[in-house]
Amino acid sequence: MFIHNKRLQYTVRVGETNPALASLLLEQFGGPDGELAAAMRYFTQGLAEDDPGRKDMLLDIATEELSHLEVIGSIVAMLNKGVKAQLSEAALKEAELYRSLTAGGNSHTQAILFGGGPALTNSSGVPWTAAYVDSRGEPAADLRSNIAAESRAKIVYERLIAITDDPGIKDALGFLMTREIAHQKSFEKALYTINDNFPPGKLMGVAPFADMYVNTSQGEGDMTGPWNDGEQWTRVDDLDEVMPADDGDGVPTVKLTRAESTAATKLAARTQSVPDEDVQTGADLGAGPGAGRVTGGTDLGSAPSIAKAVKPAK
Amino acid sequence: MFIHNKRLQYTVRVGETNPALASLLLEQFGGPDGELAAAMRYFTQGLAEDDPGRKDMLLDIATEELSHLEVIGSIVAMLNKGVKAQLSEAALKEAELYRSLTAGGNSHTQAILFGGGPALTNSSGVPWTAAYVDSRGEPAADLRSNIAAESRAKIVYERLIAITDDPGIKDALGFLMTREIAHQKSFEKALYTINDNFPPGKLMGVAPFADMYVNTSQGEGDMTGPWNDGEQWTRVDDLDEVMPADDGDGVPTVKLTRAESTAATKLAARTQSVPDEDVQTGADLGAGPGAGRVTGGTDLGSAPSIAKAVKPAK
Amino acid sequence: MFIHNKRLQYTVRVGETNPALASLLLEQFGGPDGELAAAMRYFTQGLAEDDPGRKDMLLDIATEELSHLEVIGSIVAMLNKGVKAQLSEAALKEAELYRSLTAGGNSHTQAILFGGGPALTNSSGVPWTAAYVDSRGEPAADLRSNIAAESRAKIVYERLIAITDDPGIKDALGFLMTREIAHQKSFEKALYTINDNFPPGKLMGVAPFADMYVNTSQGEGDMTGPWNDGEQWTRVDDLDEVMPADDGDGVPTVKLTRAESTAATKLAARTQSVPDEDVQTGADLGAGPGAGRVTGGTDLGSAPSIAKAVKPAK
Amino acid sequence: MFIHNKRLQYTVRVGETNPALASLLLEQFGGPDGELAAAMRYFTQGLAEDDPGRKDMLLDIATEELSHLEVIGSIVAMLNKGVKAQLSEAALKEAELYRSLTAGGNSHTQAILFGGGPALTNSSGVPWTAAYVDSRGEPAADLRSNIAAESRAKIVYERLIAITDDPGIKDALGFLMTREIAHQKSFEKALYTINDNFPPGKLMGVAPFADMYVNTSQGEGDMTGPWNDGEQWTRVDDLDEVMPADDGDGVPTVKLTRAESTAATKLAARTQSVPDEDVQTGADLGAGPGAGRVTGGTDLGSAPSIAKAVKPAK
Amino acid sequence: MFIHNKRLQYTVRVGETNPALASLLLEQFGGPDGELAAAMRYFTQGLAEDDPGRKDMLLDIATEELSHLEVIGSIVAMLNKGVKAQLSEAALKEAELYRSLTAGGNSHTQAILFGGGPALTNSSGVPWTAAYVDSRGEPAADLRSNIAAESRAKIVYERLIAITDDPGIKDALGFLMTREIAHQKSFEKALYTINDNFPPGKLMGVAPFADMYVNTSQGEGDMTGPWNDGEQWTRVDDLDEVMPADDGDGVPTVKLTRAESTAATKLAARTQSVPDEDVQTGADLGAGPGAGRVTGGTDLGSAPSIAKAVKPAK
Amino acid sequence: MFIHNKRLQYTVRVGETNPALASLLLEQFGGPDGELAAAMRYFTQGLAEDDPGRKDMLLDIATEELSHLEVIGSIVAMLNKGVKAQLSEAALKEAELYRSLTAGGNSHTQAILFGGGPALTNSSGVPWTAAYVDSRGEPAADLRSNIAAESRAKIVYERLIAITDDPGIKDALGFLMTREIAHQKSFEKALYTINDNFPPGKLMGVAPFADMYVNTSQGEGDMTGPWNDGEQWTRVDDLDEVMPADDGDGVPTVKLTRAESTAATKLAARTQSVPDEDVQTGADLGAGPGAGRVTGGTDLGSAPSIAKAVKPAK
Repeated sequence: MFIHNKRLQYTVRVGETNPALASLLLEQFGGPDGELAAAMRYFTQGLAEDDPGRKDMLLDIATEELSHLEVIGSIVAMLNKGVKAQLSEAALKEAELYRSLTAGGNSHTQAILFGGGPALTNSSGVPWTAAYVDSRGEPAADLRSNIAAESRAKIVYERLIAITDDPGIKDALGFLMTREIAHQKSFEKALYTINDNFPPGKLMGVAPFADMYVNTSQGEGDMTGPWNDGEQWTRVDDLDEVMPADDGDGVPTVKLTRAESTAATKLAARTQSVPDEDVQTGADLGAGPGAGRVTGGTDLGSAPSIAKAVKPAK
Repeated sequence: MFIHNKRLQYTVRVGETNPALASLLLEQFGGPDGELAAAMRYFTQGLAEDDPGRKDMLLDIATEELSHLEVIGSIVAMLNKGVKAQLSEAALKEAELYRSLTAGGNSHTQAILFGGGPALTNSSGVPWTAAYVDSRGEPAADLRSNIAAESRAKIVYERLIAITDDPGIKDALGFLMTREIAHQKSFEKALYTINDNFPPGKLMGVAPFADMYVNTSQGEGDMTGPWNDGEQWTRVDDLDEVMPADDGDGVPTVKLTRAESTAATKLAARTQSVPDEDVQTGADLGAGPGAGRVTGGTDLGSAPSIAKAVKPAK
Repeated sequence: MFIHNKRLQYTVRVGETNPALASLLLEQFGGPDGELAAAMRYFTQGLAEDDPGRKDMLLDIATEELSHLEVIGSIVAMLNKGVKAQLSEAALKEAELYRSLTAGGNSHTQAILFGGGPALTNSSGVPWTAAYVDSRGEPAADLRSNIAAESRAKIVYERLIAITDDPGIKDALGFLMTREIAHQKSFEKALYTINDNFPPGKLMGVAPFADMYVNTSQGEGDMTGPWNDGEQWTRVDDLDEVMPADDGDGVPTVKLTRAESTAATKLAARTQSVPDEDVQTGADLGAGPGAGRVTGGTDLGSAPSIAKAVKPAK
Repeated sequence: MFIHNKRLQYTVRVGETNPALASLLLEQFGGPDGELAAAMRYFTQGLAEDDPGRKDMLLDIATEELSHLEVIGSIVAMLNKGVKAQLSEAALKEAELYRSLTAGGNSHTQAILFGGGPALTNSSGVPWTAAYVDSRGEPAADLRSNIAAESRAKIVYERLIAITDDPGIKDALGFLMTREIAHQKSFEKALYTINDNFPPGKLMGVAPFADMYVNTSQGEGDMTGPWNDGEQWTRVDDLDEVMPADDGDGVPTVKLTRAESTAATKLAARTQSVPDEDVQTGADLGAGPGAGRVTGGTDLGSAPSIAKAVKPAK
Repeated sequence: MFIHNKRLQYTVRVGETNPALASLLLEQFGGPDGELAAAMRYFTQGLAEDDPGRKDMLLDIATEELSHLEVIGSIVAMLNKGVKAQLSEAALKEAELYRSLTAGGNSHTQAILFGGGPALTNSSGVPWTAAYVDSRGEPAADLRSNIAAESRAKIVYERLIAITDDPGIKDALGFLMTREIAHQKSFEKALYTINDNFPPGKLMGVAPFADMYVNTSQGEGDMTGPWNDGEQWTRVDDLDEVMPADDGDGVPTVKLTRAESTAATKLAARTQSVPDEDVQTGADLGAGPGAGRVTGGTDLGSAPSIAKAVKPAK
Repeated sequence: MFIHNKRLQYTVRVGETNPALASLLLEQFGGPDGELAAAMRYFTQGLAEDDPGRKDMLLDIATEELSHLEVIGSIVAMLNKGVKAQLSEAALKEAELYRSLTAGGNSHTQAILFGGGPALTNSSGVPWTAAYVDSRGEPAADLRSNIAAESRAKIVYERLIAITDDPGIKDALGFLMTREIAHQKSFEKALYTINDNFPPGKLMGVAPFADMYVNTSQGEGDMTGPWNDGEQWTRVDDLDEVMPADDGDGVPTVKLTRAESTAATKLAARTQSVPDEDVQTGADLGAGPGAGRVTGGTDLGSAPSIAKAVKPAK
């Protein structure tokens, strides 16, 4: 059960209102690496977890992320406090309000639709979606997802710190960023406390394919490194060897019943292409007198190739 | 530039058609941990990457994931080959077709909407979204995301293997699952080849908060482990200490201009609640004669509390 | 700041596992009227609210909804506990696992993708989206939205109670349903404690249009009632009167600059249709020998009109 | 069946083109409280409604909302008429067109993707989704949802009026806003014409929980009001009383079959954490020489705490 | 199987960085008509296609579209290269970085969330969704969809060319645009190579309704043209003729079982409206003293009708 | 302005209720090719269209599609009428209701969430999104999109007809399907009435690339046909010729300012990989004693390769 206290986990002191900045900070409120995503990732894992240590840790951190959601949301609410009041009371001339809402970022939607309240969207106004939550119910995978999520959240906070010169906001963001570091450390400890956590899950992998590196991108820029070279790797440069990687012919097949086969034959007959003859097409019908002479031509502007690639005036 | 060869990276041999199974396998075609998500994650990272080694690796693996997308999509196409032909040729009685489409999973949509072609949805029919792609442009974060993504994909393949007894499908899934293990190994190597990769990014974190563990979930079930206990942790059990964690009062504030302040005052006056007096409400108006006696009552079925919590017959 | 205690707000006693039922209950975990939607609706309102009474109430109820999210999620986790273990340990034959996952509802995705953990989706597997949260930052609108949301949630719980015969689940759902009733009552009180809450906001409305009822759907079934008839309504039955409702001509216009006007003329010339002459089309090209005789014909099955509306065999 | 007349329900007179303003007005075309959402909410309810009076009202208002969709879409089309022609005819220098599309709001997407036509997105470019439609098929809930939706739409129109100084647009928005007031009145009448409409649905609620107010957010700022205090409320301040609210132990349980239990034991063994020993982690491997001394340090800019929290130069 | 070469299909030469322009170009990377949509449309069709000619063509073009995705993504990466480095290294003052991110378009999200890497969103930041892929598994429909998709993509490239004056970018966009023209031609050829491709599919249509044009939008502006007039059309101007178009009464009916009928009767009784009496509503309760006099009044600004439609000051 | 008459455009006579079938039919109510998508596609085009003939046609057909939305929604409402009443009145035993909702398709969500009303989702429960609407504001593209959309809708109706044996439903679906054919014919006429409609838009294309066919998918299965062979095509089989297609080196470049260049150098230094030395990774730490011997092994079940690829028991 959750309990709440109206004091924040970190004091929010905003120097002046700025709805455009507020709309950028939403990235950590309702964005993919934001605090709701974090809270929900750990909370859903915690509910299904039976290991008592991990369950406790997941619920601890989930709960703290909710408190961080409150901190970042409070910053947003403070930054929007002016526009909220002025828009709802029509306290400025229309043109001034219009300008204040189109000064950058996505603050226009935040004001018009959400009335200056913190909205669960990212900085482009995209609504938060549970598609961001990648809990899979296997701790050796989930803990790696959590480690990665904390890494991403740390980076986004770092970027927000780099664009903000309000010391109070910067201070609070620094706190939130640092807590992501601490959480990553906890998840790392929890992962390596599971013996035999790689590969995750129960199956080991089919031997010949676990150490194979397939060099599918070739040409200039081909490189080697510990990730594709060395004694633990079987490197495949001649791609014909893996077309296919097994001893088959690389062609998909399925056994059809007689009834299925009959229907498939009918379908093929009905929809067959007759490639031997050329045909007139809708494009042929629609092409005007200029169509036959797609042009490149002389330089008529900044890009040579576009120059005269224009339909002739009629 | 991409080139394609019609041979698959692994031969697909499907024993018999099964559209319901096909709809489950879509999880790895158009699901969040599926092959399109993998390909696009590494491809978008590779395009923006300047480190030549990482760029090469990302493009190698992105390209291979596209080939895996082709393998899993080919399995789906084979499993659907019967229903595709029979539905488009109306080759069965209506009731038989209806039954074949409602036999489980989401095969009904796969047949009716997508005509048996492999659709970029997950196993519930949710369309693939780029919200699944968590590339952030910082390698120490992105590589951790890639490690996590490979872990998750490995687990989902393991689960699909567990529900499939067609040896040809099982074989191909085993190949695909194993390649995720190999890719995870590559990404691990690439991560640890970056010196000083923790914490990711440029900022270190604000000292007092990086080693703090906040025990926000308390009560029975409180546990300790390396993730919250030991010399590297400062553990906070008395939560008053972090309400707030700084030396402020935990209350959010912002400095308003005079004009903002005036508008805020008007807004407050217009929308104030008058809590001292009780009021009649819409619910009061709407409550019927039974409303005053919300009941618990005697046992009228399986759940005592629901028993008689029913509006009285009129 | 949030604090958590591992005891639930209501004890969850599940009689036996049932992943299909679990997938139905997700409607109140990650569905549009579920507990996350409720918690986030009130939480975002509370953060931006300055009225102390409403702020306290919104945070109280938001926090309680998080505890309800925990209760419903715990029921789901219990119902999935068997399939989670059996799938991850491959503890059943493939065919048995396959059957257990295709027994109804969307349990297949819950097991394969989410590993039996409670997922923030609705009962069709649609991920939760913040598009469900309709906070607008004006209390006279938001409180009405909250009243409506509680009404909807109450109904969905009622339906889930109707399909569940496990007394422990029914009991917990009864508790959760009843709390929605209590919350609706609180929001009703808070709404009517605002003087002059209708119409919401600051503007009253333009007089002639506020009492007008436009009878746009006519024909048999036209009815009257307090919603369109009586002394407070001006009813418009002759729709020509409101084509348009003002004294204009009902045609949209805009003043263009000379440059805009010139471009518009060019655009019109380039894309004009030449309706006077008939034209051959792609459909004409593509229509086979049977195309000219779209048929209705004799009864060839259950629906007369479909009977022979079939392309002739070749 | 629907019939259309090309005259609008309200004459649209736009003073000058302005694609940025157009993109803001889209909030009421394709936004969550826009006219399509309104039309579809009432239309889907109307189709399933059997009560003749409500059915007629729902279809009347749904139809009118379609006419409003036409009015707001026509305003958008007028505002975009210049950019549409100039972009499609390349009638301005590239730099001028570029500037005209990046002048605020989301007009860039409206022009590049939608060619200046009114798009069914909100003011941030988020496509309209049926997730906005909250019809539930129970009139006592649906009518409350409709009342709330009209309240929200009224507020959004009010905000758009506040930022527009074009008298023709303002006039049309005033009409549309006022019609929302009228519609809210109709839905209120229809709700209270149902006897015994609270609580909505058939079940009354479990007695002890319907009047309980749980004071989950405590600390400074705790308030009372008619929503949580007075004779109809049982207020719970000591939260231990509702951990849990029933007489159980607040712990979730489920009865497993023997086979499920065996699998669960195996799963627990495979994934157990071994919390007694400290472990080396990936973060330990990755931390550079500066990792041990996460610093706070001296003031190096606007925020003291961020000051020197920077990785040491190498 | 896919193979990659690090050389692009077209050389990308960007004159100077410009993150706002980059965010506009994303329309063709992750937008609905962008290269990923194209690649996935043809790839999913190709996998399920059995006709060898069409299969080859679809895989050829799908593969080329992936190469185009790489070209457009590389342009975006080049345009973002400055902001990526400066943001991640905090190489500018906060205010300068802030300004560089709020200069138009959606570049703020591209920088903060995606770190300057090309993101699979459109120019408003909307994540790519497989809802854009409209493959249906019937070639006579799919080829028409492909023709339309190429037409749309061509137009969006044309618009991007019109707003860009960087010759290198313009050149590459010209190449990409032209390839859409070539692809449209291929799909046209493939469509008309299928005999009897109209109407698509197997059924012809029910005779009387295939040539009927229903003039549902009437009033001034009613026009004729080859699309609704001429010998192949039966035009319906008197809409009563098609209310309904069959010989029934236009009323929906269903046969209920006795049990269903009983339940329906109960439902009707419980939720019936009692339209004969007027009722007091929540709106009546909430309307303040000004509510009775919704005003139009004197001119108080730009729009007469809004003038005094303001709640009276208290 | 829209007007409505309660008579349907086609009489709906449903033989018996069937919520599972209802959930399949939703494909044409709220699916991507359904009637709402059609109505909104033409309506948004019509609002922005200035050509009087096309505008009239688009509004005619948009309005008719709304009437079709009503027909298909009425069928769904009839099919759900039993479950709606029985669920809301709890008129069946819990187990019976549960079974009736899990009988196939997505009827569970339709009943629990939407109460049996027609919901704007597809047959998998995915909410309708305006991402389905591909209006681009250029008639030569939009009309092709409309032609394609009608083709797709026709096919989906054909499939629904194939799975339904209720003659009344089949009859109505036949009407709706046929109207799609008629609409496609209108759009074809309108397209070819525009002179010079190919390529769509104003630019012709850069000459050398408009007739080039790039044979990117090679190997067995390479085919020729009118789409890639013949006098109008320049076919490229040696792909080195188009790596790149221009005379450059196929490498992306951008000119950086000095400040950008400095930051880029710092970024490269901070995140460089040190590929020369092998490194220990998290996977190395996590691999258990069995990790070194990823096995293939003897046959232990249906798929040889999976056989013993299992972690050793401890």
